[in-house]
Amino acid sequence: MNIFGMNAYIIPTSDFHSTEYVSDYFKARALLSGFTGSAGTLLVTTDGAYLWTDGRYFIQAEKQIAGRGIELMRMGQPGVPTIEEFLKNYLNDNMTLGFDGRLLNASFCLNLRKKLKSTVKINCNEDLVNIIWKDRPSLPYSLIYKLDDYYTGLSYKDKLAKVKAEMTKGKADLLIISALEDQAWLYNLRANDILHTPVFLAFTIIAEGQTTLFVDENKVDLGIKKYLDENNIEIKPYQSIYSVLKDIKNKHIMMDLHKVNYLIYSSIKDNNAIINHEDPTLLLKAIKNETEIKNSKATHIRDGLCVTKFMKYLKENHEDLTEISASDYLKDLRMSTHGYVDLSFDTIAAYKDHGAMMHYSATEESNISLAGDGLFLVDSGGHYLSGTTDITRTFALGNITDEMKMHFTTVLKSVIRLARTTFLKGCTGQNLDILARGPIWDLLIDYKCGTGHGVGNLLSVHEAPNGFRWQKVPERNDSAKLVPGMITTDEPGIYLEGKYGIRIENEMLCVAKGKTEFGEFLGFETITYAPIDLDAINPDMLTFEEKAWLNDYHQTVFEHLNEFFEGEDLEWLRKYTRAI
Amino acid sequence: MNIFGMNAYIIPTSDFHSTEYVSDYFKARALLSGFTGSAGTLLVTTDGAYLWTDGRYFIQAEKQIAGRGIELMRMGQPGVPTIEEFLKNYLNDNMTLGFDGRLLNASFCLNLRKKLKSTVKINCNEDLVNIIWKDRPSLPYSLIYKLDDYYTGLSYKDKLAKVKAEMTKGKADLLIISALEDQAWLYNLRANDILHTPVFLAFTIIAEGQTTLFVDENKVDLGIKKYLDENNIEIKPYQSIYSVLKDIKNKHIMMDLHKVNYLIYSSIKDNNAIINHEDPTLLLKAIKNETEIKNSKATHIRDGLCVTKFMKYLKENHEDLTEISASDYLKDLRMSTHGYVDLSFDTIAAYKDHGAMMHYSATEESNISLAGDGLFLVDSGGHYLSGTTDITRTFALGNITDEMKMHFTTVLKSVIRLARTTFLKGCTGQNLDILARGPIWDLLIDYKCGTGHGVGNLLSVHEAPNGFRWQKVPERNDSAKLVPGMITTDEPGIYLEGKYGIRIENEMLCVAKGKTEFGEFLGFETITYAPIDLDAINPDMLTFEEKAWLNDYHQTVFEHLNEFFEGEDLEWLRKYTRAI
Repeated sequence: MNIFGMNAYIIPTSDFHSTEYVSDYFKARALLSGFTGSAGTLLVTTDGAYLWTDGRYFIQAEKQIAGRGIELMRMGQPGVPTIEEFLKNYLNDNMTLGFDGRLLNASFCLNLRKKLKSTVKINCNEDLVNIIWKDRPSLPYSLIYKLDDYYTGLSYKDKLAKVKAEMTKGKADLLIISALEDQAWLYNLRANDILHTPVFLAFTIIAEGQTTLFVDENKVDLGIKKYLDENNIEIKPYQSIYSVLKDIKNKHIMMDLHKVNYLIYSSIKDNNAIINHEDPTLLLKAIKNETEIKNSKATHIRDGLCVTKFMKYLKENHEDLTEISASDYLKDLRMSTHGYVDLSFDTIAAYKDHGAMMHYSATEESNISLAGDGLFLVDSGGHYLSGTTDITRTFALGNITDEMKMHFTTVLKSVIRLARTTFLKGCTGQNLDILARGPIWDLLIDYKCGTGHGVGNLLSVHEAPNGFRWQKVPERNDSAKLVPGMITTDEPGIYLEGKYGIRIENEMLCVAKGKTEFGEFLGFETITYAPIDLDAINPDMLTFEEKAWLNDYHQTVFEHLNEFFEGEDLEWLRKYTRAI
Repeated sequence: MNIFGMNAYIIPTSDFHSTEYVSDYFKARALLSGFTGSAGTLLVTTDGAYLWTDGRYFIQAEKQIAGRGIELMRMGQPGVPTIEEFLKNYLNDNMTLGFDGRLLNASFCLNLRKKLKSTVKINCNEDLVNIIWKDRPSLPYSLIYKLDDYYTGLSYKDKLAKVKAEMTKGKADLLIISALEDQAWLYNLRANDILHTPVFLAFTIIAEGQTTLFVDENKVDLGIKKYLDENNIEIKPYQSIYSVLKDIKNKHIMMDLHKVNYLIYSSIKDNNAIINHEDPTLLLKAIKNETEIKNSKATHIRDGLCVTKFMKYLKENHEDLTEISASDYLKDLRMSTHGYVDLSFDTIAAYKDHGAMMHYSATEESNISLAGDGLFLVDSGGHYLSGTTDITRTFALGNITDEMKMHFTTVLKSVIRLARTTFLKGCTGQNLDILARGPIWDLLIDYKCGTGHGVGNLLSVHEAPNGFRWQKVPERNDSAKLVPGMITTDEPGIYLEGKYGIRIENEMLCVAKGKTEFGEFLGFETITYAPIDLDAINPDMLTFEEKAWLNDYHQTVFEHLNEFFEGEDLEWLRKYTRAI
């Protein structure tokens, strides 16, 4: 920083595409701060260091950065400035702010520039991390493979036609797509560049008669090359997009400034008009087609079977297990399942007070035995060729207290109230969130995260633009109007620091409920199939309707899973899916 | 229109202050269209006429404009353009749009100008209605009176200090207030210029050392003049504000462009800077102080007594009553109540299928007997020196059907779910609305209006910025964050055209529920005290918690009202507030 005359330097958690999870090459923030959570921004100044992260990670971050001289900035808490506000105050006349322009999105940089004093200089051309990171991993590399239309339901050409219709509506000559999931969805291609997100580093430019894919050609084998040729998709080197953009003249270029990096934006000449517009692929991808829905339900049956077998194993063997050995057992079950590709994220397996850390990940040091009595929170999921799952179950091991049962049943009420609602078309997750949060708020407890998120199909397990969250958080873009075909998680929880954590998570498909003179009504179909631990429920706390929902749900679970069980195992399943 | 070369002319429902209810002088839209509802905009073009109104009035407007050659534009329904969209398409090059610039707010006009083709001309200087309206009523005239600090809790000087603090925050030299309720609140003055809204036509300019009140001096008697002098408030003629504004130079002027009319905006010279900002009085007025809360509760006891006596009278005498004679009886009860000033709005007394018209007002022609069996919806309220009420009860007269009971109990569940919720500070009515709407949506039914609105204290019965509404409607400005001290109605309903209407409306005070490590939690205290007709309830549909709420509520009603009853009357009250 001294060499370049920088007074502050931003080290974000991002690759060149604003991807949620990043490959090791991009994990500079974790390296320098020690904090390994999925979201956070490090700011280094000449006299200090600051880490911004959100409510999911307050407890974890506090522990991991302890002793490093880094101040934790708890996002969204009263009195805590945003990084923009902090920089606005910190940077005085003629000071210089540095960052790598490829790692921050154009919108953030343009807004930051507006907020800073006009004499503050910005240097966005230096990757300082690269200078000090001697054994930096290389950029990710994996072979690209084709996902059959049997799984996707729509061919590339079908999807391109829909995207072009949106471009026409938006009066765009060109569309630049930077989001990796959106490109993988559009081409029906997948790879393994990013852990748990089966995509490949690439950029796309769609023009009237030509689509150009900027990607490392080594990742494209002959079969994929043939497929791209047949579909009139031109391949160019990954890094060449910047020079290609410099040659474009007098076009209306559509792009999402929240998604493209600042260098892409800067490479476009002024004689073009930029149309700042959400990627048309985003909504098209979120609304699952009939084939995807059918496949997704079948996937959830196979994945639910893994979690159910895991539950039985846990109940009977927990005295001999640890957090890590238990999650390894669950992983083995998934790996031996038809169509398995990867875990959809790192399993959270958190016993007792570890459960209060919402995104706890057991390490060799933190790993504890599952012996004794307590609540064991397991949040896990799998990528399969036919779809992606995300499920949380909290299990009662041994004997649990009445207070635990009261809290568990409250979380269950929350899950049910959201699951069984009917709502008018036009509602967003902001309208519905209180259905889940209400029973927990009644206890003067809150959980510091959204109630649910969209789920990609063999893509990111967190997918925009649908979600449940009472306050709008623009950068999350998860408050879209709910539409039949969207799949969203329903995962309220109670987290008591030093005591335990409870989360129950199902995925729900948005479905039509009926059209009347009063409007078009929508609702949800729960498509996660695994028992909710009856050992942890106080039935007296459930209303008649809530009991009916739970009994129906367990009946559905039994119907989908009973063919995979026999003898004593079947009796066990019957017991844990019984009506109460 | 031909004389002035106008191709379209807008006749809105507004006075010079964007007041919700207007005096007779301003009722041109009702005169020309026949539609008497409180909200609607008439557009006359050279070849047609169009009336925009909202869901509350679809049924009523359709009936009232029938045969006049006016097309009803149902606001918010699919495929129905807004008036701006309509004009954008209708007005071609060089056409002229006309309206009286004093009757439309500045924001609307500025936005409309942007949307229209640049060659479309606007003539906002002609009040065409005045030319054709021979016996037009005069501008409203009433004497101004002072509301004692005993009622208001805060003096003018206290309020001015709070307003000035907000001006300083907003870096304003001057503040222009046009909203009549806000001026009445600030000065602790009331009058009778507008039916059911005890305010006076006026404008206010607040500067550093001087407040100027623009008002017809004849309305100010010697006592009020002395009060104004003592408080250093200068009086100028009502119409002189436009010329005074023309002389202001180089100031930062705060005003709400949604509230000030276009002529005010246009009178300000360019060398001033306009700060478009919500009136600071708006939020200050909405958060009732301790004195106002105490008075409001006492008012609701007296007003609830009227409604309760009315209920008994109805139950026993409905065979001999009509919609009008019943509402006259209720009015008489209120008029003989201590501190009565006025009704807070025209009583809605709607029997059988009339109840499906949300804002039905019985006329001599429409008036029907209350004989036989059916549901009778009565929405009414009073202004008292100590506060304002708004209450709806739907009464079972004779024997009602099981379907009616099912719908009534559903509406009651809606009322209760909203009333007993706990929520985190920061929530708006958009977050909470589904609590009330959910049970009704479960039946694939919706009501085409908000669930509730703020209530003024001896001001407008509909008061911004608090309310319950799932979609944000910017012009209503009723989606503010809820704060302890706000009073909001809770009034879901079911309206079945040709059959019946059911609405139950209570007022709720926002209160603190507790502060924990998870945040600050709020809730509501219901402050309307009158029985909810147990004859119309199916107890089997209520959960344990809902029954508990209802029984507690009726117990509170009994405790507040029993001292006013004796003998057979007391037994009646006991019966209709019994636990179920």
